[in-house]
Amino acid sequence: MASQKVQAMYDFSGEPGSAELSIVAGEILTVTRSDVGEGWWEGTNQNGETGLFPAAYVQAYEDQQDYWDDEWDEEWEGSPPPPVTPMAKDPLMIPTIPSQNDVKNSEESLPISESFSRKNFNRYSTIVKSVGEGYLLDEAKRFVPEPAKIRIIETEHGVMWNPIDEPYSCVVAQPKKESKLKGFKSFIAYQVTPSNTNIQVYRRYKHFDWLHERLKEKYTLIPVPPLPDKQMTGRYEEQFIEHRKNQLQAFVDCLIRHPVLSRSSVWNHFMNCTDDKKWKIGKRNAEKDEFIGDMNFHTIEAPERVINPCTLDQEVTTCARFVHNVDGAVKFLMDTAIDQTKKHMGPYKKEFQKVGQAFYAFGNAMHNDGAGTTSESLTNALRTIGDTYNDIGRMHEEQPKLDWEPLGDMLQIYKGMISSMPDVLNHHKKTQMKKKECEKLAFEQKMTPAQLESVSRRTDIVSYALLAEINHFYSDNSLEVSKSLKNFLQQQVEFYRKITEKLETALQSMD
Amino acid sequence: MASQKVQAMYDFSGEPGSAELSIVAGEILTVTRSDVGEGWWEGTNQNGETGLFPAAYVQAYEDQQDYWDDEWDEEWEGSPPPPVTPMAKDPLMIPTIPSQNDVKNSEESLPISESFSRKNFNRYSTIVKSVGEGYLLDEAKRFVPEPAKIRIIETEHGVMWNPIDEPYSCVVAQPKKESKLKGFKSFIAYQVTPSNTNIQVYRRYKHFDWLHERLKEKYTLIPVPPLPDKQMTGRYEEQFIEHRKNQLQAFVDCLIRHPVLSRSSVWNHFMNCTDDKKWKIGKRNAEKDEFIGDMNFHTIEAPERVINPCTLDQEVTTCARFVHNVDGAVKFLMDTAIDQTKKHMGPYKKEFQKVGQAFYAFGNAMHNDGAGTTSESLTNALRTIGDTYNDIGRMHEEQPKLDWEPLGDMLQIYKGMISSMPDVLNHHKKTQMKKKECEKLAFEQKMTPAQLESVSRRTDIVSYALLAEINHFYSDNSLEVSKSLKNFLQQQVEFYRKITEKLETALQSMD
Repeated sequence: MASQKVQAMYDFSGEPGSAELSIVAGEILTVTRSDVGEGWWEGTNQNGETGLFPAAYVQAYEDQQDYWDDEWDEEWEGSPPPPVTPMAKDPLMIPTIPSQNDVKNSEESLPISESFSRKNFNRYSTIVKSVGEGYLLDEAKRFVPEPAKIRIIETEHGVMWNPIDEPYSCVVAQPKKESKLKGFKSFIAYQVTPSNTNIQVYRRYKHFDWLHERLKEKYTLIPVPPLPDKQMTGRYEEQFIEHRKNQLQAFVDCLIRHPVLSRSSVWNHFMNCTDDKKWKIGKRNAEKDEFIGDMNFHTIEAPERVINPCTLDQEVTTCARFVHNVDGAVKFLMDTAIDQTKKHMGPYKKEFQKVGQAFYAFGNAMHNDGAGTTSESLTNALRTIGDTYNDIGRMHEEQPKLDWEPLGDMLQIYKGMISSMPDVLNHHKKTQMKKKECEKLAFEQKMTPAQLESVSRRTDIVSYALLAEINHFYSDNSLEVSKSLKNFLQQQVEFYRKITEKLETALQSMD
Repeated sequence: MASQKVQAMYDFSGEPGSAELSIVAGEILTVTRSDVGEGWWEGTNQNGETGLFPAAYVQAYEDQQDYWDDEWDEEWEGSPPPPVTPMAKDPLMIPTIPSQNDVKNSEESLPISESFSRKNFNRYSTIVKSVGEGYLLDEAKRFVPEPAKIRIIETEHGVMWNPIDEPYSCVVAQPKKESKLKGFKSFIAYQVTPSNTNIQVYRRYKHFDWLHERLKEKYTLIPVPPLPDKQMTGRYEEQFIEHRKNQLQAFVDCLIRHPVLSRSSVWNHFMNCTDDKKWKIGKRNAEKDEFIGDMNFHTIEAPERVINPCTLDQEVTTCARFVHNVDGAVKFLMDTAIDQTKKHMGPYKKEFQKVGQAFYAFGNAMHNDGAGTTSESLTNALRTIGDTYNDIGRMHEEQPKLDWEPLGDMLQIYKGMISSMPDVLNHHKKTQMKKKECEKLAFEQKMTPAQLESVSRRTDIVSYALLAEINHFYSDNSLEVSKSLKNFLQQQVEFYRKITEKLETALQSMD
């Protein structure tokens, strides 16, 4: 650890006259102490200056060949990477001994630590350990780098994530088959291009899957949009790849619309990192992110106002009921979309083509009946009709990717998020229960009023996060469903208009 | 037989100074001799005058209750009537002893009769009896009432039946359920109204069936359009009755377009007779029609020109090939029409309604999500889309009777006629073979050149009839198929236009 090198991700201005070291994004530091505590590390910059800086502002810096190259390159497209134990949970990596600033509070904070970590550990362990032990009861101050801060605001439309100030788009395009190990292993790389940086990167399904895992791990109250299902067979078929591209695009679109996810460092790393070495470093940093799970609530800046428990309860109940109602309906419509997609491409197409064949065969048989010109024009008309229905059959095959498939993709994401909501609500509920436990402790004078107040504030921060997320969830999905429905109907209108036109042309050819 | 009463159907002016009796349509005569021969009967009119008149100009007159009332009224809707032996084949009814006019030819005609009916009877019996013994070798002159005459003309478009001079239409409408025997027996009566007389009659399926039998029996070289298939189950269901009405209409339309069928007395009787008693008389007259089967060729007036055997052979071969080619293709398209009709009314309808339900259920679930007005309008949009697809489902159920069903009905008739054609061609071929037999007989001097010439002329008349029929068959079916296809396409265009409009309306409701 003594010789560990790190790279500054952000600028940090150390307070003049203190032990703090100012750092500049990009510079390499050698870590001299990682056991300073409270998120501080000590290190030496390339000018030989030594001082303290926030550990969250730097990332590991590797200049040797990455030793887990093989693991990463293994062909597991579609299957999840081996579970990674976030290093943030490693006591060696995230030391929490009091910093200088907190020494004066140590008399107050010690009893809590004691009441939970010693005397009452067994009694509270189930709840405490499962949810937010590291947060609700964590009185230690954490340094949160500015870019990692998540703000919640109150507006006339309710509690909201601070909106995205500079919305951008990100295109998933040009899936291409690539191979390595002299063609022994092949995979599909999708081009990912965000509009704000215009950097083109290539990502495989497993990269998306890794990103997805990080986001789920990091944001316990945000239903992260699901990835398309794994599909091991036929995954190099053009149609499958094209569809997966669209599904990944829908996933990316959904991320980008989210005020928190779209600003998350792991996503930014995923979307912008072109350098192989930096990619690996960023990957490891994300995996040992300090602010994952409940610790992420440390990064939230919420309104000071104490949340009215009745209002909160009502919001949560409404949301739970909504999720319950919508769950089956979304599944029904999604299954219908999948079913219709298949039917258009299979039986419907075949039916129209069978009709086409019947007309065409009749036309062929009428040919040369001896009735001269009448039969000639009739033969032509019948063949034209045959061709028309054959074309309409082909149109049925082509159509779903314009209407049913995108609708199904939207619904698949919606369904995935809906199905995460019970966990989200449950997680929140457990926080509420823990708060109640603390109230009981305070009543029994096992917790000081100041400690309880601190727990209440933190519980409110969690609730603010939930409310902001519910709000986003409602409005984003409403808009997204509307948009999808409009596209669906537009495409359907266009489809039937084209069929009408085709038939009109066939009819006109009979005059 | 002595007291048999007949009613004159047509006027007949007896030659003054001869034994002939002038008769006026409608008057009642008492037959005194039906064994005069050569189509002549002797009878007495109500003024007491006695004389000879053509038997074909009168019909049986009944004033007592019809003794086969029960048989006729029996409930056998859809099944054929018990086979009727045409009385025309009864030697008692159609005596063919020479008339006064033919007595001078008796020396010539006797050897033929002898050569076939006595000496060579066994040798020729198979061909002779099966085809046209009564016609090709029948030298007796027949009185053909003017209205019963069928003319064949030659035009630049080939040999044709004399076209219909006053085309008319005939509407089959208002099927209604009626019952007799105090409701114990019930049946459907269809209103039949020809435009030329505007007389409304009511006919049951069994009447159509009876008519159909008479026409088939009478015209050996005309493929009589088929009736709709018998259907014993569900025959009182509204949908079935409506469809049968349309099928009977198509049958009637096809009859009416035919220059020979449309003028046939049995059809005119069917279409115009309103009186119960007259109906029964006409029915019996039709059943003992003198000019049925090959005897019908007596009624044909064909061009004098001798037919070129090569041209004839070519026409016949082309027709046979055409029939062979078209047969399967018509069946394929007809089966497709039936299949599409069923699918539109069943699975397609259900599919669209399932889609409708999925949207509607999603709309219901989105209701009251807590996202306020956004969700309210989304809910409405989803319900509108649901209703739209539900309506489109219903449209699929209603549609076939506008497009696939009429097309299928047309094809069913076409297919029936196509399938009669091999018999027609075969019948003609046998006539040709008989002519060859006669040529051989003439070569062996067992037949006089004059007799052979007479046989050749009659064979040509049969061939003229075939050529006229082939010509009608081609052109009528070409036109009919064209008309049907146009209607089909127009209805399809209209259908898809309506679907497009419905979807556009749903789309607009989202703004």
